[in-house]
Amino acid sequence: MFAYDMSKAGSESLYHYLYKCIQKDILFKKIEAHSRLPSKRSLAQNLGVSVVTVENAYAQLLAEGFIYSLPKKGFYVADIQAPTDPKMKRSKAGHKAIQKQDDEPERIKSQYICDFASNAADLESFPFTTWAKITREVLCERQRELLQVSPSEGILELRKAIAHMLEEFRGIRVEASQIVIGAGTDYLYGLLLQLLGLDKCYAVEDPGYNKISKLYSKYNVDFCFIPVESEDFVSAIEKSQAQVVHLSPSHHFPTGKVMPVAERYRLLSWAAASNDRYIIEDDYDSEFRMVGRPIPSLQNIDVLEKVIYLNTFSKTMTSTIRLSYMVLPKVLAQKFHDEFSFYSCTVSNLDQYAMARFMEGGFYETHINRMRNLYRAKRDTLLIEIRKSKLSKIATVYEEDAGLHFILGVNTALSDEEFCRRAKAKGVHIRALSEYYFEAEPSAHKFIINYSSVEKSQMAQAVQALANVIR
Amino acid sequence: MFAYDMSKAGSESLYHYLYKCIQKDILFKKIEAHSRLPSKRSLAQNLGVSVVTVENAYAQLLAEGFIYSLPKKGFYVADIQAPTDPKMKRSKAGHKAIQKQDDEPERIKSQYICDFASNAADLESFPFTTWAKITREVLCERQRELLQVSPSEGILELRKAIAHMLEEFRGIRVEASQIVIGAGTDYLYGLLLQLLGLDKCYAVEDPGYNKISKLYSKYNVDFCFIPVESEDFVSAIEKSQAQVVHLSPSHHFPTGKVMPVAERYRLLSWAAASNDRYIIEDDYDSEFRMVGRPIPSLQNIDVLEKVIYLNTFSKTMTSTIRLSYMVLPKVLAQKFHDEFSFYSCTVSNLDQYAMARFMEGGFYETHINRMRNLYRAKRDTLLIEIRKSKLSKIATVYEEDAGLHFILGVNTALSDEEFCRRAKAKGVHIRALSEYYFEAEPSAHKFIINYSSVEKSQMAQAVQALANVIR
Repeated sequence: MFAYDMSKAGSESLYHYLYKCIQKDILFKKIEAHSRLPSKRSLAQNLGVSVVTVENAYAQLLAEGFIYSLPKKGFYVADIQAPTDPKMKRSKAGHKAIQKQDDEPERIKSQYICDFASNAADLESFPFTTWAKITREVLCERQRELLQVSPSEGILELRKAIAHMLEEFRGIRVEASQIVIGAGTDYLYGLLLQLLGLDKCYAVEDPGYNKISKLYSKYNVDFCFIPVESEDFVSAIEKSQAQVVHLSPSHHFPTGKVMPVAERYRLLSWAAASNDRYIIEDDYDSEFRMVGRPIPSLQNIDVLEKVIYLNTFSKTMTSTIRLSYMVLPKVLAQKFHDEFSFYSCTVSNLDQYAMARFMEGGFYETHINRMRNLYRAKRDTLLIEIRKSKLSKIATVYEEDAGLHFILGVNTALSDEEFCRRAKAKGVHIRALSEYYFEAEPSAHKFIINYSSVEKSQMAQAVQALANVIR
Repeated sequence: MFAYDMSKAGSESLYHYLYKCIQKDILFKKIEAHSRLPSKRSLAQNLGVSVVTVENAYAQLLAEGFIYSLPKKGFYVADIQAPTDPKMKRSKAGHKAIQKQDDEPERIKSQYICDFASNAADLESFPFTTWAKITREVLCERQRELLQVSPSEGILELRKAIAHMLEEFRGIRVEASQIVIGAGTDYLYGLLLQLLGLDKCYAVEDPGYNKISKLYSKYNVDFCFIPVESEDFVSAIEKSQAQVVHLSPSHHFPTGKVMPVAERYRLLSWAAASNDRYIIEDDYDSEFRMVGRPIPSLQNIDVLEKVIYLNTFSKTMTSTIRLSYMVLPKVLAQKFHDEFSFYSCTVSNLDQYAMARFMEGGFYETHINRMRNLYRAKRDTLLIEIRKSKLSKIATVYEEDAGLHFILGVNTALSDEEFCRRAKAKGVHIRALSEYYFEAEPSAHKFIINYSSVEKSQMAQAVQALANVIR
């Protein structure tokens, strides 16, 4: 015992080698609990090392609790009960491999001619040069601010720019203090659940974006589905237990429908009837209405501060910059400030200052206008291709004016599953509307055409492939 | 009715002016519900505008649901029940102003000589030039990857760099697939609550970092406090209802204590006794142990995969880059992958790639070493100043070897509140240990000395000021 061969320390520091030797003997019970360790001086002499080396090894063992000291008596071995075989290094064998292999490329490049199922933005059109230039400018000019902690709600400069943009583009007048910035809409949904209450019942659209109901179930909150295609959406909400309604009135996903203004007012009346009722308005792609002016938001006509407006830069910029925001009614903004500002803002300062500058410089407006034209041209090309092809004899286009997708109704005997399967075999990735229903009766033979990420040059071929599915 | 003065349109487009006029008449009930609108042609003629103008105005009203159309009959006014006075612009008056004024500067510059209550990193030492250079390089060279959606767990390159660093610095061997990246520790805490279950009971250290219990209460989860200064921390956990323990064994905040290895093994044995038991190990400033080697993490000796290791770059880099990570035991990593990958990663690609490159290039290691030396020098200066001053006669320093704070015990009759108030009056911001207790009996006359953000040049004056508090 304690007769360690110090020449085996190799490149390691002597004290650390000694520490490891004693530690091992303690763990493997070669030294009994509560037995006294040799004095520093005698051990140093025995091993042929300096007293400082032993001192350092003992200090480390002491710090970690392998040994304890009794005043004027010396050092003693602690009583350590390891749960099983106390190997310091654990065996890796016998573990179920995690499905996702690390060696795989992060994204498998799409083998499709055309992917109508992706709602990604057009990557080629991202204003990379301007964005990179602005980011470099911020790095260069805002060094001090980049290291100063952002308020929980986000950096004021960005909140002001968003407030200004909302007024300009959407006619929404809010104060910067009502805005909360977060790293993505998911994150803000979660924050809202905490702010509005995990004990509330949330109404979710059916059919709908399934991420929302997934998130609600992960948070264990009570939620119910409201059929959006029923005659009377608002009556269905009235009949439900819901206190909070989560919806996209400007452009419902996936049906593409716009909520009529009469329903909007009825919904606001429903919310007004009780203090704890709120409406979460997810305005995710309202910037891209293809005909006429943007549909005014619910928030615009909300005199009673019942609407929480939520939007993201994922659709207009790129989802790889994590930036979303919500506009809280004043009473909730105050509650957020009082009770939730212990949370750190989830967006890094660099992204916040860069986005603020991008907006202040007018680049955002220019970019949106350019993208709207680009997407409109994509949509028009696609509609023309459909009209020209024999697909037009068996298919009808619905809801083509709002947002970045429309619905293609196909007169076919094929099941939706079979249609999608055959389309896939022909290189076209497409999803049926029926995949997005929860409890409501699915509307069959309708397909979602997301065209934002599809190249114009692929469209003729894709339409041809879809037409061939039905033969 | 419908006799609008189109010359008043001004710079607005004619169709939009017309749309607004009709909309107003509908909302103010000047046109009755279900009454028929004039035909496009006749209205165009009456107003002296083109048919296209009327067509566009009707189309917008139709899209928003102000009017409806009956085939072959024409357009009719919808029945809209606005909840109250249906003004399109809402009144801003009468609202309680939100406390935080927007015109205020974002951070009030500290008026203190010295802030021992701030746990911010030393801002002057942030390697801004290198970080900015690497960010510029990533912007320049990784354009394609910057626009490709990150996996929910984070970008593989960064997860690999973190796995490598954990092995090098902490002796922790994990696979990149066990790592989940998130925008800050708060965010990861929330994710963990969902992953482990909102129906579990969580044990929280008392005294402790109050953000954790705040977060737990916002998530409505059951939690209990475990007194860390009691004789037997693990027995207290055993007696509690807790299934999950949240702690910082390498450096407890605020007491600064290191959990002895015997307790660690007992804690692991406790966790091993049931499938749903887990330990959340928050290793927040383990990089900055000032004496000897870093204390091995609990994760190091966890043979049974019961420990979730969590750390952040906020302490080592800056909290304004939002980057934290957790290492999940394999079974939880699989569960995350199966059930939670619908969540988008909350960190932007730019920050992820920049951090990966910063680590791969060895800059992170260099930076940590430099910072450890810097902080050690700060600590040493401060300890010397205390020893030199008359404060040493009435004060004792505890737990000065781990992390970026230590405890100053003061022999005084003053209450903690009074001591802090007097210190503040003399320009020194300081917090009492007793402020961090929840249910346990607070240890009085102990104060937390966070020295990371304090300049060496301020220390003598700050110590002098504290000594003067007691006269």
